[in-house]
Order: sequence, then C-alpha cells, then structure tokens
Amino acid sequence: MLHKVVYLPSSSSFSTALCSNHNESSVLISLRFDNSNCLETRFFFSFTASKFFKDAISKQACVHLLAHIFCTFHQKLSSFELFDSTLAELAILLRDLESAGKPLMDKHREGNLLNLVNSLIDMIGEPAKKLHTARSRNDQVLTDFRLWCRDAIDSIVERIKYLQFALVSLALKNEGLIVPGYTHLQRAQPVLLQHLLLAYVEQLERDAGRLLDCRVRLNFCPLGACALAGTGLPIDRFMTSEALGFTAPMNNSIDAVSDRDFVLELLSANSITAIHLSRLGEEWVLWASEEFGFITPSDSVSTGSSIMPQKKNPDPMELVRGKSARVVGDLVTLLTLCKGLPLAYNRDLQEDKEPVFDSVKTILGMLEVSAEFAQNITFNQERIKKALPAGHLDATTLADYLVKLRKIGMGVPFRTSHDIAGRSVALCVSKNCQLKDLSLDELRSIDPVFDNDVYEFLGVENAVEKFCSYGSTGSACVADQLNYWMTKLEIS
Amino acid sequence: MLHKVVYLPSSSSFSTALCSNHNESSVLISLRFDNSNCLETRFFFSFTASKFFKDAISKQACVHLLAHIFCTFHQKLSSFELFDSTLAELAILLRDLESAGKPLMDKHREGNLLNLVNSLIDMIGEPAKKLHTARSRNDQVLTDFRLWCRDAIDSIVERIKYLQFALVSLALKNEGLIVPGYTHLQRAQPVLLQHLLLAYVEQLERDAGRLLDCRVRLNFCPLGACALAGTGLPIDRFMTSEALGFTAPMNNSIDAVSDRDFVLELLSANSITAIHLSRLGEEWVLWASEEFGFITPSDSVSTGSSIMPQKKNPDPMELVRGKSARVVGDLVTLLTLCKGLPLAYNRDLQEDKEPVFDSVKTILGMLEVSAEFAQNITFNQERIKKALPAGHLDATTLADYLVKLRKIGMGVPFRTSHDIAGRSVALCVSKNCQLKDLSLDELRSIDPVFDNDVYEFLGVENAVEKFCSYGSTGSACVADQLNYWMTKLEIS
Amino acid sequence: MLHKVVYLPSSSSFSTALCSNHNESSVLISLRFDNSNCLETRFFFSFTASKFFKDAISKQACVHLLAHIFCTFHQKLSSFELFDSTLAELAILLRDLESAGKPLMDKHREGNLLNLVNSLIDMIGEPAKKLHTARSRNDQVLTDFRLWCRDAIDSIVERIKYLQFALVSLALKNEGLIVPGYTHLQRAQPVLLQHLLLAYVEQLERDAGRLLDCRVRLNFCPLGACALAGTGLPIDRFMTSEALGFTAPMNNSIDAVSDRDFVLELLSANSITAIHLSRLGEEWVLWASEEFGFITPSDSVSTGSSIMPQKKNPDPMELVRGKSARVVGDLVTLLTLCKGLPLAYNRDLQEDKEPVFDSVKTILGMLEVSAEFAQNITFNQERIKKALPAGHLDATTLADYLVKLRKIGMGVPFRTSHDIAGRSVALCVSKNCQLKDLSLDELRSIDPVFDNDVYEFLGVENAVEKFCSYGSTGSACVADQLNYWMTKLEIS
Amino acid sequence: MLHKVVYLPSSSSFSTALCSNHNESSVLISLRFDNSNCLETRFFFSFTASKFFKDAISKQACVHLLAHIFCTFHQKLSSFELFDSTLAELAILLRDLESAGKPLMDKHREGNLLNLVNSLIDMIGEPAKKLHTARSRNDQVLTDFRLWCRDAIDSIVERIKYLQFALVSLALKNEGLIVPGYTHLQRAQPVLLQHLLLAYVEQLERDAGRLLDCRVRLNFCPLGACALAGTGLPIDRFMTSEALGFTAPMNNSIDAVSDRDFVLELLSANSITAIHLSRLGEEWVLWASEEFGFITPSDSVSTGSSIMPQKKNPDPMELVRGKSARVVGDLVTLLTLCKGLPLAYNRDLQEDKEPVFDSVKTILGMLEVSAEFAQNITFNQERIKKALPAGHLDATTLADYLVKLRKIGMGVPFRTSHDIAGRSVALCVSKNCQLKDLSLDELRSIDPVFDNDVYEFLGVENAVEKFCSYGSTGSACVADQLNYWMTKLEIS
Repeated sequence: MLHKVVYLPSSSSFSTALCSNHNESSVLISLRFDNSNCLETRFFFSFTASKFFKDAISKQACVHLLAHIFCTFHQKLSSFELFDSTLAELAILLRDLESAGKPLMDKHREGNLLNLVNSLIDMIGEPAKKLHTARSRNDQVLTDFRLWCRDAIDSIVERIKYLQFALVSLALKNEGLIVPGYTHLQRAQPVLLQHLLLAYVEQLERDAGRLLDCRVRLNFCPLGACALAGTGLPIDRFMTSEALGFTAPMNNSIDAVSDRDFVLELLSANSITAIHLSRLGEEWVLWASEEFGFITPSDSVSTGSSIMPQKKNPDPMELVRGKSARVVGDLVTLLTLCKGLPLAYNRDLQEDKEPVFDSVKTILGMLEVSAEFAQNITFNQERIKKALPAGHLDATTLADYLVKLRKIGMGVPFRTSHDIAGRSVALCVSKNCQLKDLSLDELRSIDPVFDNDVYEFLGVENAVEKFCSYGSTGSACVADQLNYWMTKLEIS
Repeated sequence: MLHKVVYLPSSSSFSTALCSNHNESSVLISLRFDNSNCLETRFFFSFTASKFFKDAISKQACVHLLAHIFCTFHQKLSSFELFDSTLAELAILLRDLESAGKPLMDKHREGNLLNLVNSLIDMIGEPAKKLHTARSRNDQVLTDFRLWCRDAIDSIVERIKYLQFALVSLALKNEGLIVPGYTHLQRAQPVLLQHLLLAYVEQLERDAGRLLDCRVRLNFCPLGACALAGTGLPIDRFMTSEALGFTAPMNNSIDAVSDRDFVLELLSANSITAIHLSRLGEEWVLWASEEFGFITPSDSVSTGSSIMPQKKNPDPMELVRGKSARVVGDLVTLLTLCKGLPLAYNRDLQEDKEPVFDSVKTILGMLEVSAEFAQNITFNQERIKKALPAGHLDATTLADYLVKLRKIGMGVPFRTSHDIAGRSVALCVSKNCQLKDLSLDELRSIDPVFDNDVYEFLGVENAVEKFCSYGSTGSACVADQLNYWMTKLEIS
Repeated sequence: MLHKVVYLPSSSSFSTALCSNHNESSVLISLRFDNSNCLETRFFFSFTASKFFKDAISKQACVHLLAHIFCTFHQKLSSFELFDSTLAELAILLRDLESAGKPLMDKHREGNLLNLVNSLIDMIGEPAKKLHTARSRNDQVLTDFRLWCRDAIDSIVERIKYLQFALVSLALKNEGLIVPGYTHLQRAQPVLLQHLLLAYVEQLERDAGRLLDCRVRLNFCPLGACALAGTGLPIDRFMTSEALGFTAPMNNSIDAVSDRDFVLELLSANSITAIHLSRLGEEWVLWASEEFGFITPSDSVSTGSSIMPQKKNPDPMELVRGKSARVVGDLVTLLTLCKGLPLAYNRDLQEDKEPVFDSVKTILGMLEVSAEFAQNITFNQERIKKALPAGHLDATTLADYLVKLRKIGMGVPFRTSHDIAGRSVALCVSKNCQLKDLSLDELRSIDPVFDNDVYEFLGVENAVEKFCSYGSTGSACVADQLNYWMTKLEIS
Repeated sequence: MLHKVVYLPSSSSFSTALCSNHNESSVLISLRFDNSNCLETRFFFSFTASKFFKDAISKQACVHLLAHIFCTFHQKLSSFELFDSTLAELAILLRDLESAGKPLMDKHREGNLLNLVNSLIDMIGEPAKKLHTARSRNDQVLTDFRLWCRDAIDSIVERIKYLQFALVSLALKNEGLIVPGYTHLQRAQPVLLQHLLLAYVEQLERDAGRLLDCRVRLNFCPLGACALAGTGLPIDRFMTSEALGFTAPMNNSIDAVSDRDFVLELLSANSITAIHLSRLGEEWVLWASEEFGFITPSDSVSTGSSIMPQKKNPDPMELVRGKSARVVGDLVTLLTLCKGLPLAYNRDLQEDKEPVFDSVKTILGMLEVSAEFAQNITFNQERIKKALPAGHLDATTLADYLVKLRKIGMGVPFRTSHDIAGRSVALCVSKNCQLKDLSLDELRSIDPVFDNDVYEFLGVENAVEKFCSYGSTGSACVADQLNYWMTKLEIS
C-alpha cells in the first residue's frame, strides 16, 4: 500500500534518494527538493510480499516507474499536470491492486511495468502516453533486473551473516570440545570443534565478499540505453541513476542492453556458496550417523519413522547438500544461454530470469535451513570423548616434541622425528594401547632421545594445547579467532 | 638460472619482498634487512619458460622454498650454516637442472617441491632434512597453487588490456563508420562502429575487475597450516606470508587446507570472460560471411582453400567461440569435484589442478587470438555504406523528431509518434524507397505535424547524429568515451 | 472421470493389462480374468489435463494404486470386501475431486498417492489401512516416476515425428531450390534445400532412437522393493509389474530405490535433442536476417515493431535456441545431485523431480515451436537464386570434371585438379565474373586439358546435378531420401 | 608393425572385413576375394600402444586409409600399379615410423591421415596424389573419430564387465555377511552384503547397455560425404562402409559432416557411469573410515603415513569419486561447444576431440581402479557383526510379523503394525536392549497379539531370512541373483 503521497511541485531542481528495505517488502522513496523552503516528499510502499509481489520483479518495476515519472517531468518532457495526476492515480492503482490481491502482471514476466503504464493510461488518458517517452522494453527490464539482483544480494549477505552467527553460537556452546580432524576421512589430528566450525565461518565471509564485489560491479544504471543506441530526447540519465540508488549510468548503451555478466557473476557467487554449504551438509549428515554419532538433531529439524522412534534423519542437511546441484545447474543454464550470442539484444535472453530467481531462492533457503539446523543440534560430548583415543591423534605432536628438543642439542630433523613417532605408534598398535600408555623405557627403546617431559605432549588434550602457530587449533589461537568473530558479528 | 646470490647473514630481523615478473618467467626475490647498514639481497631467476617450467607450478615451488628457508633460519629452527649452504646448493641445483633442460618434477604433479628438497638433502646431507620442518604437503601445495593463480590473474588481466587496446585501435582506424545495430539479428538502429566496439571494451573492463577482486580474496597465505591443524613449532606465518607477497596468513588452518573457493572464483571469472569472447567470436564470424560482408580478415588470421582462393575463413574467431566451451566445462568439473566433500583434505582435490591450468591457458589464448584478429581485419567501408539504407534504420529518429516538436505545442506522445513513424515506413516499403525520399506532402498525408526540418533527422548519417543521451551512439558521446579509453589505455 | 467400474470377483487368477493414452490424459485399465466365463473389466479415467493433473505425477499415482489394490486382493492380503469397497470409493473420490477441480496433492510433491490412500481410509475406515500393506514411499514414488518418464518419452517421440513431418513438408514445398552450403559460415558448395532440411530429419531420427532405447532400459518395475530391502509379505512383483505395463520387476531392491540413471539418461537424450534444435534455431535466425534474406516468417510466428512494420523478428527460433540452455542446465543439476551419494536412499534425491519436469516440458515446447515455425515460413526463392552466383560454388564440380576426364588418359590427380580449379576461380575474381562466363580459350590458358563439355559442369544448377554419391546433394539422391522419409512418415 | 602383406589383384569384386582387437593395439584387416580361387589377404598391425600411437586417433587413420586404397582401386579411380605400390610403401612407412618411435602426426591433431598420405606421395611420386581422390578432411576425420569411439566403447564395456566380475567375486568371498542398509545414512534394515554389491552390478549392466546402444547408433559411415555435399566421382560408399565394419553409409552428407551427437551420447553414457562410480567411491571411503570400519584396504591400494603406520587412506576410491567430475565437465564442454552452431562444418568443432579422449581415458581408469580396489579389500566381519545390533534393524520384520498373523484372524493393518513395532522399539531404547531381548510379557504389554513365534522374526539374522519378495535381500533371493550373474559373467 502506498501510505503517503506528498509532493511539492514548485521546485525546478531536486534530488532523490531511494531506500529500499527489502525485508519488509516496503519501499521508501524520498524526494528532497533543493529549495530551502521545500517539503520533504516520501513515498512508502509496504507490500505483503507473498500476495502482492507474486512476480519477483514487480517491486523493482514500481520503484523504477516512479523514478522515471520524476525525471520526465523534471526534464520538461511531461507537464506538472501529468506528474501530479500520475502520482495520484498510481497510488490508487496500487491500493486497488493490493486490496484485490492481484499481482501486477499476467502472462508475460517482462510485462509488469508495461501493464502498470497501460493501466495508468487507461485512468489518466492520452497525456499518460508520455510515460512511454524515451523508454524501451530493453533498458526498462534490465533496470528492474539489476535492482532485483541488488536486493537479492543484500538478502543473501544478510542470511550469510545469520548462518555465521549460528555457527559461532554453536561453537560457544561447545567450548573445549575436541573432535578428530580428518584427512581422507581418516582421523588425522585432534582439533577443537570451535576451530572446525570457524573454518565454515571463514568460507562464508569470503562468500559474502564475493557477492558484495558483484554488487559494486552491477550497480550501474542501464536506463536510457533504450532499444540499444540511446535516445535523441533530452533525458538526464544521471538523475534517474541517482534516484534509483545506482552509482552512475552505464557508459555504453549497447553494452547496457546486451550484457548479462552481472547475473552470471551473481550465479557464480551463489554456486560457490552452494558448494560450501554442500560440504557442511555432507559433514553434518556424517556426524548424525550411528557410526559417527557426533550430533543429535532435535525433532524440529529431523524426520523420524513410526517404526523406529529412535531415528533422527538429518533431512534438512541432505537437502542443503542436494540443492547445491540446482544452483550449479542454474549457472550452467545461464552460461550456455549467453554463449555465442551476437550483439545486441536477442530474444534468447528472455530466458535469463528463471535461473536467477531459482538460484537466489534456493541459496536463501539453503542458508536459512543450515542456520536453523545449527541451532537445533546437540553434540554428544561424552560419546565423542570416549571415541577420541582411536587413531593416535597425538602422533604429530610427538614428532613436534622431538624437533623442539633443545637440551644437549638433541633436536632431530622433522623427517627423522616422523620415523620415531611412527615406530612409537606401531608399538601402540601391537600392544593395543595409546601413546601415553607407553612407558618411558618403551619409548627409549625406540630412541634414547625421549625424556619424561614427553608425557606433556601425549593424549589428545595435551596434543591440542601444543598447537601454537597462527590460525592453528591451539586453544589460545582459537580463542583469538572466536573473539574476532564475536566482535564482528556483534555476539555478546 | 639463478643470476646472483648475495646475502648478509648478520641481521637478526629482516623483511622480504617478492616481485615476480611473470611474463619473462623470471623471479626476483629481494630481501631487505632492517639494519641500516645492510646490503640488499636479490635473487633473480630467469627461466626459459617452455623448457624448464614444463610443470606449471614449479616456479612457485622455488619461490616458496626460498621463503621457507629464510624463515626457518630466522626462527632459529635451522642454523646459519644450513641457510648458507642451502642457498648455495639451491643455486647450483637450479642451474644444473636448467642446463639439462629437465623439469623439476617427474610423475607426480604435486611432487616438485618435494623433489627439490630431496635433491638438496642429497647435496647437503643430514642437516638439510630440517627443510622439512613444519611443512606438510597440504599447505605447501596450496601455497604454490595460490601463487600460481595470482600470477595467472596478472597475466590474464594484462591480455585483457591488450585486447582492449586492439579494439580501441580498431575503432580509431574506422572513425565515422556507421553500421547497423541489431536486435533479434534484425537491423534496428544505426550505430557508430566505434560505439559497438567500445561495448566489448566495457565488458572486458568488468572481466578484469572480477579477476582483480578474486586476486585480493585469494592473496592470503596458507603456509603453516600444515596437515590441517597448524603446528607446535615456533614458525612465523606472518613473515613467510609477507615474503611471498601475500596480504596476511589465513586465519584458520582447516579452512586453509580444505577450501578451493579461490580456484572456483578464478574459473568463474574466466567463464564469464570466455562467454564474452564467444559473443565477439560469433559477431565477427557473421561479419566475415559473404552475406554480411562487413570485414575481411588478412591471410595471417584466416585459412583459405586451394580451390577457392577468394575464401577467407575466420578460423581464429570460430576457435575463440568454440574454446569458450572448455572454459565452462573446466568450471563445472571443479564445482562438481568439490560438491559434498567433508572437511578437511580429501584426495579428490588432487584433481583441482588440471581444470585450472586448462582454463587459464585457454583464456590466455582466446584473448591473444582475439587481439591479433582485431589487428588484422579490414572493414569494407564502401560495401557497408551501400547496404545501410536497407532496414529503415532512421525510423526511431523520426519518432524522436515528433516527440520533440515544440512549435505550437505539437509535441506528440511517444506511442503516437511510433504509429506515425510506422506508417511512414510502411509507405516507403510500398514505394520501395527510403524515408528521406518521401516528399513533405507525402509525410503530411500521414500526419500534418511534419515540417521541412524533418529532413535533418532522416538518413542514417543524420539519424546517428541526433542521439544525444549519455552513453548513446551520437558521435559526441562516442568521442567522449573513446577519449576516456584512450587515456586509460595510454593510447596516443 | 472414472467412466465405468465393472468387475467380477469370483475368479482366483487373472491377468491385467494397462493401456495409457497419454495424449488425451485418459487411462484405460483392463482386467481380463482367466476363467472363460468371465467378463472383461475396464476402467477408464479421462481427465481434463490442465485442471486435474496439475501435479505432474498424479495420473501415474492413480494407475499405480489400482494395480496395487488388485494385487493385494489377489495375494489374499486383503479381502474381497475391501477390494470391492475400495474400487467403489475410489471412483467416487476421483469423481468428486475432479468436479471440484482440485488437484490430488497439496504441498508435498511426493504425497499424492499418500493423500489418495488417506482419503480412502477416511471413507472406508479401518480396513482400508491395509492399502498400505507392503508399500513404502520409496518404491511407490519411483514407480510413479518411471511411469511418468515412460509417458514423457512417448510424448517427446511423437513431437519429434511431428517436427520431422513439418520439415519434410517444407522440403516438398521447395522442390529444386538450391541454397549455398556453408563451412566456416562461408559459402562452400551448392546444395538442394531439401537435402539440407533432411539433415535435420536424420538428427531427429537418432534423437527418437535414443529416447526409445532409454524407454526400454527404464521400463522395469521397482514396486515391491519397499524401503530398500524388499518385504517379507507374499506380494507378487511380477503381477504388479505386468499390470503397470513394465517388462519385468527390477532384480535388486536396493538398486530399485537408489538409482536415478533412468532420469539421467532421459535428460541426456533431451540435452542432445536440445542442442540439435539450438542449431536449427541459429540457422533459421540467420536465414531470417536482412543479410541472408532466405526466409520470411509469417506474422503468426514472428514479432514486429510498430515503428518498423516491415520487421519480422524470428522470436520463436531465438527462444528454441535459448531454451536449449535450460535443458542442459537441468541435466547438470541432476548429475551434480547424484554425485557421491552412498546407497541407498538419501533425501537429496527428492530434488530429482523438478529438473526432469522442466526438461521434458521445455523440450516438448521446443519441438512444437520449431514445427510451427517450419510450417509458417516462406523461402524467398527469387532472392536466393539471385544471390547464388556469389562464392563460385561450382569450383569443386570443376575439379571433379578434371579428375573424371578419361579421353586420351587425361584424368588428373585430385590435388592437381584443385590447383587448376583454383586458378580458374582466381581468374574469375580478377574479371569479376563466374566460372561459366570464362571462355574455353581462357580455361585452356590455365590448362590445356579443358574441353567444351566443361560447361555442363558449370553454374550452380549444373553443379548440383553432378553430385552422385550415395547421400549426396544430387537431385536423384535427394529424391530417394525424400521418398524414404515420406513413406516412413506416411506423407502422401 | 605390418606383419604380412598378401594380396591377389585379379579379382574384380571382393568384400572386406575388419577385425580390430583394440586391447593389443593390433589391427587385422582381412580381404576375402569372392572368386573361389582367391587367396585370403590379411594385414596385421601390431603396435606398442604407448610409443607408436601417442596420438589417439592414428590407428583409426591407418585402417581407414587402407580401406580407401582398396576402394579407389576397385572403383577404377586408381590403377593396380598404384594399389600395389601403395600397400608396399605403406608397410615400409609404418615399419620405419614404428622403429623410430615417432608418432604419425605432428602438431595438428587432425593431420595424421594427411601426413600419412603426404609421406606416401613422397615415396611413390605423382600417381600417389590420386590417394586424395574423393576425400575431404571433413569426412576423413569423422570416419576416424567414429572408429575411435567404437573402439573406445568396446574397451569401456570390457572394463565394466571386469568390475562386475570383481564385485561378484567380492560378494562370493563374503557369503552370509549382513551389513546395515541405510536411508539418510541412518541404519534402516539389515541386508546381505552380497545383495548390496549386486546393486552396483545392476547399475553397471545398464551402463554397458547404454554404451552398446550408442555403438549401434554411431556405427554408420560418413566417408564419402566429402566437404559437405558428397562427390561427383564414382565412389562406392557401401564398400568402404563395409570394409571398415560400419553398418551402412550415412544417408545424408550434410548430416555426416556436421553432427556430433555420437560423441555427445558417448559422453553422456560415460557421465552416468561416472556418477555411479562416484557413489561406489563415496560408499567405500565411508566404509574405510575408523567410524564405519567395514573394510580394510590392502597396502597396494591405500596410502599410509610415516607417522601413523596404522592408517590406510583409501585414495583410489577418493580419486574415483573425484574424477567423476571431469567426466561431467567434458560432457558440458561438448554440449556447450555444439550449442547454436549453424550447418555444416564450423571450425569450433575441432575442439571436439580432447573432451572425448579425456572422458574415455578417465572412465577407463575409474573402472580399472575400482576393480583393483574391490580385489584388495577385506571386510572386517567380526567388527561388523558386533556393531549390527545398533539401530534395531529388525523392527520392520516385526511389523511384517504382525501383518502376517493369521491365527484367529488377528492380522493387523500395516499402519497399525508400524505403531506396535514402534512402541516395542521405544521400550528397547528405554531399556537399552534389543527387540529380541524383550520378554513375551513385555511384548504383550504393548499389544496382546504377540505370540511365542515372534522370536523367529527377531535379531538381524532372522530378520534378513524373512525377506522373500523377488529381488529382496532374503538369502534365497540373493542366491538366485548371484547365480544369474555368475553364469552371465562366466564365474565358476
């Protein structure tokens, strides 16, 4: 609903600003006239997203039309009377449409704006035909599409933050918990669970960065490129660009109507995020298995079986893993679509919307589901601890001990230390015990270099503590990283 | 060959800088000791790329080894004697290897660095085993791989500039040439060839920007992450990171060894560039056809037929179009590869190199070939001019004329003006003439609004001139853009 | 609507057959009892596809439920009373649902059958719970999915035939028309348009063959595999398999519920067909351009412009070209989805439906649109003929002439003949004439081997006639092929 | 080496047959003249594959050249003298080339055959130029390519059989071993390991079928299509087709040189096989983990760690999983390559070879590695048995028991039986015991329907035995299937 329509027509020069709060599906257009005595003009659109904007691109179409109306008027391509009546009728039109619960467009996805204008022509009559001035379907659709993608990026970045928040919160709930770190899905070294969860937080941070770089690159305005060559009418592309929150108008009208690299980049960024999430999905599905037994999802995020009430199927993370595929498929669709098309506009490009809508919708869902899952799992701390000794995870710490030995110059080269540690593990395997269970005599029988302080390095708890390099799994290092993220994500 | 090895061992603290001139396959490592009295130490590697660095990643391995040697020494994990002898032997080793024309590695792509170290151990003996200290295959390979990708990006960006240069030069050679602008591959509006060529220059600028954003994001150092958890040995990850020209060490050791998003991003960027070039390829193949007849490629960039000596097949641009497919395929390979892998290292990831090498090699070739083609085509100006009247390309200008009419308030709405222009074209079609051939009486029979000044808008030359919006095809607008690019690309 | 429910309960053994006429969205289930005195029982479902079967898989669900009811009864797992009442209630249920215009399922795509059964339980009460006997969601959904894919293949193959029909009809309308054959988009040799159109017919025939092979391979019944291990209840999988028209039950229950290769194969086949159609699309877009000018599409299959009434944009074929991309994207989605999933069922596989539905819907549309376009274009015969001389398309025929020369042993090697022909063309280029315009003296000045009969080989009409190898463009060869296809496609 | 050249020139009509034993890289060409008094003529090529046929397509080029020489001679387009000398010189040439260890071709992948012919021209002189008669690079390369793909399919199918053999052998070694069957990676029902392994054998059988269907479809001969339009020279395409083992010549010369659907189909089939193998890889990587602990790979198929001698990384299966990605990437490359190319030949298509070679090479390796791994793993039977009770895998058998109860009409509906079984499991969970540990009183406290015979259904061993539906995991059913495969694969 268009809440308020207040405007002051007397000014000959004004600037506009657009602020779109995409979450509440409301749009605020603020016009500030330069004259000191002017009123500030604001338009609020507040839509119930599910009903009104069935078509994904309608909101962008309204915003864009308003910007166009202002600028046409300002450039004296239309009269104040038209400006006046258009705004009034637009308000009525939107109100009626919303109360009727009808979407703005019908069959043709690209037709929303056109429909809007045609309805205004019906209401206002002949003069409203000037709303078509210096506008072509090509540049209009692309303006709406870029606005839509910009909003989409903001939404995705927000959900990325939310998942980061959930992961850091999960880490905070499980302080000190040690889990096996894997290579080849074989237990390799002990790591703090917090450290492991923060690896995903780092990935997600780059994912957000990639989207924001894409946002900067796409935020240029194609409006005024018209069919492909620009126009001979005195429009002001800088004014519409600014009114719609773009950095600047695009420099080349042919480029403006023909390229789709902004969506290819968005879908690439989504694909990389999706692959990251597929890895999280795989890991958590593993962890929820009987065999790993690391986590138990709550009933709210798992499905069960009437016949096996103990079962907790981690469906959400299976779906996260699976849905990564369609994000990749959407990217391939768009790359294949654009391949080999000559300049400028080709009708093939009509197919550019669906893969983008699907990719964005899917990635939003994947992020949300992952965050919800993270908030609804419990780590089976006792079971994890009990299983930790398997795998001799402290073997590399033993090797580090040997390298660091300084007394009487006994430090051994890294490779030699590996061999000694290896022989110690072999002894454990034959005795079916852990490294810390070997006596000093047994260790010295392998190499005389061992001393009593070796026991400070053995056992997974000791082993984890010894890691000290920047970014390592040592508890001090992990605490630093955790603090960094708590500050950054404003978690107290 | 390692040209010069000069170093000053007395300093206890130093900083390093790396400058790699990837084009000449030479590497300069400069160590500047902080003491004011220190000498600057520089290492030059200058390799004949084709022979020595058969394996794509060898150069990175050398650079990285040098950085490691410095830092191990600096951290007192190895002695000065080892530092000294290692550098000397490394120089000899590289020289010998180069003169023998043998690549550093044999079977296993990831083994280069290991081979280098093993050779040094053979030459120096037991102490050299310390070169393995605090290093794991996982973080080593990734360090080399990131260095390689960073160099690759620099090379690609340079070739992008080169193609931009070639396109702008081609534009300068064809000042004032008007060609049809197409929608649906149907002639739509007249545009300056310069305008059209600059559309590709704009695309390429975004391609370069995408790569440079990727470069910023990947330029963090995994060295010291070791197998996955970091190390307990007192290494200085900030020092090695700086020595290798990275922004900083990566914050999380598990993230460092497990993620491949930096290559996914690089391959995404390459794919988008490839799609852009496939469109250029398609366009130029069309232009070289008998039917379009816009360009004639020189013999150096076309193939002929003994039986049809007049034929000039535009093979290079067909290959540019076709090779875009493998760049896309490489991206899909890597996305599929990474899908669903749990943390941290999995052997699957060994497959990450070939698609990257192939993608980079292919895109470099595509850019080079396109630039060469651009420099070796001639526009058939006479033939293009002769064919221009077909298509009534000045019809939209006629419509603009009607909208702009101001005398006695006769300006007509855009839509109405379209109808009038349409009827005028229809008259031309029936009379088999052009718009400018219609008499004023004939025009007025369609609508009395026409006046004698309409003829200033008719004919493609007039029509092009009338475009005046920012970024449009009007000659003043195009000249501005051309100047911008000439300055930016330093074309005089 | 379920038209007729007639059944005879006294028989203890019966066989069933299913005949589904997918086009009319009607289903006939025929039960023939083995006793000689039995009545034949037939069920007809005739649905208005658009309203009732909004969910793509509902029809399959009904058919499959009926088969299950029969077999459960037959195996004495349910009583005759239940059999009787179930059929009666099912008829009522379907009738009610249809008259209400409501789809069978609500939210969950896989839930249709379950909803149906639950409704029956509501109507019949406790005994109807036996309808769940020996059935699991896993094998049920896959049974429906395979039935759906089988129907989809039949529909696609039918549309392939229809497009072949349209292409052959187009060929018949343009007998004798010669067009340039291209390599590198350069004119190479003259070909009959009929010959060129039949190349697409050949492609399509292989496309149909690929689908039919897929149909044979997928037509095995998973029903009875239950969750993954089969069941301990005495069901007869051969009976349900036969009742549903499958070749046989699948041999391995784990394979039955876990594999999706049947959809991967279907989507691969669709992708290859889509690529074929993208090539047809490209060719016809080229042909419709001002520059080629080969075809004019009728208004019904082209879009125009109010301002340029002469324009005929070939949008349908641009969309055919573009939509090939989503068919490829759907395949990539499904390949990526299935990658790396362990046995048996994983929830990821829920994502297997949408890409299949999208791929099938898209390919059906592409085939239909292409056929419609083919039926609504006119070849500009005069313009094509006028432009034919360009390109010296008879040069290779001249070379063949030289090879075939037999008098006084003058036949020249193929390579030498190429050189002579090449020099002849060069002379034409310098004189700006055609080969047939060269005098015998001029030809003999190039090589004395020429004789007067050379003129029978020159000019595109003569040139085309000289082709005589099997499958070549010679008119006799093409006529043979055309006859073959007319017979096969039953075109009189 | 060409072992034997024996021929009889006097016959005027002969038929040829080609038999290529691709495994030993040897080629036998047998010519049988129709006259009763003729000698049989055989050519053997036996090449050391690694050295001689560096270029993948060379063998095909030789075979194809021989066929062409015969047919040119036979059609009287060349004399017997040329036929005679060509065969002799070809033998010498191949022998020399082989002894020199040089590949046939140099730079250009497509140039092999041309090089061969050029060498023959050098040796034989002017008459040998006739070897070029009626041949174009376009149809030659495609003939070789189809022959290569046909051989590739035979090799892949053979390796598929080999992997099936290895899987069945592994099944035979582990008779009676019960493992958990998983859904959602949660333990669901007990299955025989044999049953599970045969699921992969079934998949592979369809994979082979898909390839053989592709083989039938591609086995048509393009030779004689020449550049695109056929030829005017009197060649016999049926003779060359037969000599090369094709079913028939292709019907349309334009189709013959322009389509690549045969490689798209081959790469699709490979992709599906690759996805199957990626699933096997994932499963076995899981099984080799400490957590699952089902299998231990031998040292020959695993990598270890000097520091953790007990580790057995299942690298081969990780690589099988990972390499599936490049097979998918190769398919995408080729689909993208072909998209939107107009007829007939475009230079883009030169890029069609590498993805095919890579796909075939990769899939061959994946199959071989999987078979080798299967032959070198041991199932940890004791550990598996010990862990089996976890998960209450006999719960569904308990439900089946309830449905089947017949005494005093007590059979309960399936759904109700699920509830009762579920409450029984819940009781076990609360008591931390298994179903078979519940007393009859405890069971009857849940539902009085239970009787003493229930214990025949409890425990995984009993549970597995109760499955009896066709294709289920019951031991009799599995034995039938195993016998089927042993017979089919000729395993005694």
